[in-house]
Amino acid sequence: MSSDEFRPLNENSLVEYIKATPALSSKLGDVSQLDNLQIKEVGDGNLNFVFIVTGPSGSVVIKQALPYMRCIGESWPMTKERAYFEATALKEEARLCPNHVPEVYHFDRVAQFCGNVELCRLTEQVVFSDPYKVSEYNRWTSPYLDKDAEAVREDNILKLEVAQLKSTFCERAQALIHGDYHTGSVMVTQDSTQLIDPEFAFYGPMGFDVGAFLGNLFLAYFSQDGHVDHENDRKTYKKWILRTVAETWNLFHEKFTALWDEHKDGPGEAYLPAIYNTPELQQLVKQKFMNDLFHDTLGFGAAKMIRRIVGVAHVEDFESIKDAGKRADCERRALDFAKMLLKERRKFQEITEADMVPEQRGGYPSTGQCCSLSGQ
Amino acid sequence: MSSDEFRPLNENSLVEYIKATPALSSKLGDVSQLDNLQIKEVGDGNLNFVFIVTGPSGSVVIKQALPYMRCIGESWPMTKERAYFEATALKEEARLCPNHVPEVYHFDRVAQFCGNVELCRLTEQVVFSDPYKVSEYNRWTSPYLDKDAEAVREDNILKLEVAQLKSTFCERAQALIHGDYHTGSVMVTQDSTQLIDPEFAFYGPMGFDVGAFLGNLFLAYFSQDGHVDHENDRKTYKKWILRTVAETWNLFHEKFTALWDEHKDGPGEAYLPAIYNTPELQQLVKQKFMNDLFHDTLGFGAAKMIRRIVGVAHVEDFESIKDAGKRADCERRALDFAKMLLKERRKFQEITEADMVPEQRGGYPSTGQCCSLSGQ
Repeated sequence: MSSDEFRPLNENSLVEYIKATPALSSKLGDVSQLDNLQIKEVGDGNLNFVFIVTGPSGSVVIKQALPYMRCIGESWPMTKERAYFEATALKEEARLCPNHVPEVYHFDRVAQFCGNVELCRLTEQVVFSDPYKVSEYNRWTSPYLDKDAEAVREDNILKLEVAQLKSTFCERAQALIHGDYHTGSVMVTQDSTQLIDPEFAFYGPMGFDVGAFLGNLFLAYFSQDGHVDHENDRKTYKKWILRTVAETWNLFHEKFTALWDEHKDGPGEAYLPAIYNTPELQQLVKQKFMNDLFHDTLGFGAAKMIRRIVGVAHVEDFESIKDAGKRADCERRALDFAKMLLKERRKFQEITEADMVPEQRGGYPSTGQCCSLSGQ
Repeated sequence: MSSDEFRPLNENSLVEYIKATPALSSKLGDVSQLDNLQIKEVGDGNLNFVFIVTGPSGSVVIKQALPYMRCIGESWPMTKERAYFEATALKEEARLCPNHVPEVYHFDRVAQFCGNVELCRLTEQVVFSDPYKVSEYNRWTSPYLDKDAEAVREDNILKLEVAQLKSTFCERAQALIHGDYHTGSVMVTQDSTQLIDPEFAFYGPMGFDVGAFLGNLFLAYFSQDGHVDHENDRKTYKKWILRTVAETWNLFHEKFTALWDEHKDGPGEAYLPAIYNTPELQQLVKQKFMNDLFHDTLGFGAAKMIRRIVGVAHVEDFESIKDAGKRADCERRALDFAKMLLKERRKFQEITEADMVPEQRGGYPSTGQCCSLSGQ
């Protein structure tokens, strides 16, 4: 179907669609009640429409993949087949972890299985390419960050490192990853944590997921100064964000290595117990693996930060700072930190607040790019 | 088809098969002439049967994939589907490089497309696992190399490095590679160079192919002292082998980077000209790429050497040395060199004879493992 033939759902056509789809209508109420559904379009993402539909006996979320980028329009075509990968990933994730992903009631598609090429290509472009070149899609807080965006495009060392991350992203089929694991893909209440939106799912490098999450936390951190007012200096919240960064990595590290230990005599073939046959050697390979993964994580996290400041799609944390000058100051600090992290990532060994984050004195292993951050 | 139902071809059944297959019989002669074909089984590989069939008007090579490893027997089952990957790779290679791969006249199979999992798994086992653990399939020149084989199994640093190479082999879909690119897969005359046997073909790391070839040249080099006699001290030949090692890498480097330059404004997306937009930066990314590829090449080459000395499948270069003690001496020198190369590969920057190879004074960047080699 070409994008000409494609119709975005509206309230009327959505009700018709639900009536014709028992897997959905049965969740909402009797047939007689379906004319009084409450419908709210809540999609604030860059790609899709998302409707919350509430009926007398329950509610469903309906997500429609458009054949183009929602935030750009029909001039940037985009396969609707991404919904297939999203549904397939959700089902696989639900098999492994049923409590933390939404249940798929219904999926509507016509397609054969293929590699998730187009969504990977989108990531390649918007994360690893566009921010480092002149692109009609790039935007930033102008004119304040004009020089900063230009500096990104002219930083040879940065571009060298980004080339390596890009090839790792394209080539390294390390695990089934989410592919767009920013904080907005995690929905939490006190009792429930749900991971959503895996339409970018593919076999890629693990650090891309973990890094995206940490990168978004750092963005949130750097945006806080722009939200300070007389009632709230946000210092406590900033500390909490940094603690969450450290806890996220440390808990991931702890759980991952615990699973490794638990399954070390299992059917996995990467580290055969007959080869890695002493506790000391097992410790060594685990350390090396986690160390490499940590550096991947920092690199990808930093790349995701950069692209949210000078690339096509930004984050609400900064966007909601009304004063452009103030916003630019926050973004600049985030950008400088990300550039440092991307270039110097191999020097970091642990994600402690003192080592990693700005506003902690003398923590950086490199003296060059980091000075401007230490004193912010 | 289970291996019970499977019949290895013999001369009689082969003639029947050819008669029933016009794509083959038409190459050999008239139907009336097909009872006087000359048939020779020439497969000296580890996996398959290979027949050269000659008739009045021409000849064909027929290769039969057995449902098990030829060199081990039915106790090591092996998918016949490998022939599918071989035929598919040959056709793709012939499309790109018609002068240097054999033409596929006919391919006989029933299967659907799938990942070349089983052959990759075989490589994982025989190259990256078995040599580093006790395995019923391993063999070596015993008792001479008993201690050496044990030392390989107890070398933690070596096993740490092998784990990384193994994960790179499994995860890094860098290019369509041959997968078993030893010197026996290259057939040469003065006028013709043919690359054969791509049944291990998959999307993997380039260094695995280049390294396999260099590793086999090094094995040939180290075997020469075992073949010395009064008439030939083999010194000239040894020098030629080393020169060929250096020329192979240097020529590969030269051609690869020339193609890079030639296509730098082409449709490839790895190094967009809009990002890598100065000659200096283009030079930098190329250098970094080639440097990483060089280290991959040395690592994989070394791993392939080790497995040919203490793993399941050996090379004729050593096997043909009748005197076991003399053979063991040659193999030990090769093994020690390979261990050094695998562990110290990141210290090498260029493949010059002085830097790389034994018998050149003071060429090694590391003083530890290499001393015993310098004076051989």
